[in-house]
Amino acid sequence: MTSAIEPHKARRLYLLLRDQISSGRLPSGARLPGEPALAAEHGLARVTVRRALDLLASEGLVRRRPGSGTFVQGPDGARPVIGDLPNLLAGLIAMGRATGVRLLSFEYVAAPAAIAEALLLDPGERVQRSVRVRLIDGRPFSYLTTHVPERVGLSYSEADLAATPLLSLMERSGVTADRATQAIGATLAGPEVAQALDLEVGSALIDLTRVVFDPTGRGVEHLHALYRPDRYAFQMDLVRTGDAGERRWTPAVPRPVKPDSTPRRPAAHRRPAP
Amino acid sequence: MTSAIEPHKARRLYLLLRDQISSGRLPSGARLPGEPALAAEHGLARVTVRRALDLLASEGLVRRRPGSGTFVQGPDGARPVIGDLPNLLAGLIAMGRATGVRLLSFEYVAAPAAIAEALLLDPGERVQRSVRVRLIDGRPFSYLTTHVPERVGLSYSEADLAATPLLSLMERSGVTADRATQAIGATLAGPEVAQALDLEVGSALIDLTRVVFDPTGRGVEHLHALYRPDRYAFQMDLVRTGDAGERRWTPAVPRPVKPDSTPRRPAAHRRPAP
Repeated sequence: MTSAIEPHKARRLYLLLRDQISSGRLPSGARLPGEPALAAEHGLARVTVRRALDLLASEGLVRRRPGSGTFVQGPDGARPVIGDLPNLLAGLIAMGRATGVRLLSFEYVAAPAAIAEALLLDPGERVQRSVRVRLIDGRPFSYLTTHVPERVGLSYSEADLAATPLLSLMERSGVTADRATQAIGATLAGPEVAQALDLEVGSALIDLTRVVFDPTGRGVEHLHALYRPDRYAFQMDLVRTGDAGERRWTPAVPRPVKPDSTPRRPAAHRRPAP
Repeated sequence: MTSAIEPHKARRLYLLLRDQISSGRLPSGARLPGEPALAAEHGLARVTVRRALDLLASEGLVRRRPGSGTFVQGPDGARPVIGDLPNLLAGLIAMGRATGVRLLSFEYVAAPAAIAEALLLDPGERVQRSVRVRLIDGRPFSYLTTHVPERVGLSYSEADLAATPLLSLMERSGVTADRATQAIGATLAGPEVAQALDLEVGSALIDLTRVVFDPTGRGVEHLHALYRPDRYAFQMDLVRTGDAGERRWTPAVPRPVKPDSTPRRPAAHRRPAP
């Protein structure tokens, strides 16, 4: 057995213990086996076990009490900000959260094929490409790459973009955003994004792509956004509609984001505080 | 330099190259440097470089042509099924896709604290807990853990659940699902989930939690779902509403899922086929 940390194996043990905590098999308050026992059970070096426990502790899933051991804190430690993703920024401002932005790059380039197709660009039409990191309360939480047709992008400067949300700039300069399609998935942080978001390479991120169209059907913005799931979750309310046998979920009319970081319940269903 | 594969470093190189491909810095058709050159540039063993290239190839991002090298395929190879997540199953059936389910566990247990809180259970109220894997066209794509109050769960059997969607069983037995809250994030696959979904440990997954309430405000279902993002993406249409300065995105009225695996655009904006 080697005594060097094996990061891949540390991550595997971390994920195993994390799932045991979130499923309740390791309940809140339980004491984990000691490092030597975990090392023997999983055939790992103690430094590798310690790395796995460090990862659990950094997420608030366990707490180490010197001299007595490592105890499960339960999955409900730090909850992410919950909001309405499409109107994220407006919601955060309404909540009085301090937001900031770092403009990492700003350039005019030939449109990559996938972008040209999504925005329905004319052949040869160029795009303005920007990369920004958005911060809440001084901590990075999203990594945004936008492509905008050059004709639209020329209406604002690099300095404008460092200070003002892109859609506001566009709407101020006469572009009308009319509708959008949006797809949400998940991906792993690569080295560049991990550094910008202050994460380990290989962390899970929410992956959002939104394409915005003007009333004539021309594409005006392609946004690719990566969010730290520990700092943000996309929340929506649904209502059940339709006749028996054909019933389906429909988005409820969005309500303003509350200055409240716990998951929302439909207002009529809140249990009175004890 | 060692000659054993270092999985952590292979993953890092894979993510670096993946991002260079998706950002267009390595454009479609480009030839990657050879294994010896990549090994020297990144200070890695050739077997580690080969593992990174295997990961890219398995996702369709590169193609190896024996004798001539490794070439970028572009990020648009295999696209996930796109649909309307809340009505996922109904949508898939409408699309004529073969779906299946594997029931991994079915039991009655004491409610974990977080579940009791989310469902607004009475003190001591027990829950029926089930774990299922759902398949499309024979391939696993989601891992579903549900908790249902015992009083509701007793109305159907393990065999019912292996054959019929949970919400249909509940509605058939007289429970009315009225509204729900839903939060979407991202997480990493732990060993158990990775095995069930036929993935590597540490892969990115879409993480969805939905809590369903009846018309009196009682919780009737807590669903935690993990989706493979390469096999599923949550898509929605948005419309821009409100007055100048107060404009925001609102979900468009959902339309039936089309038998079409490419991202949808608003119908009025489709460009005619050339």
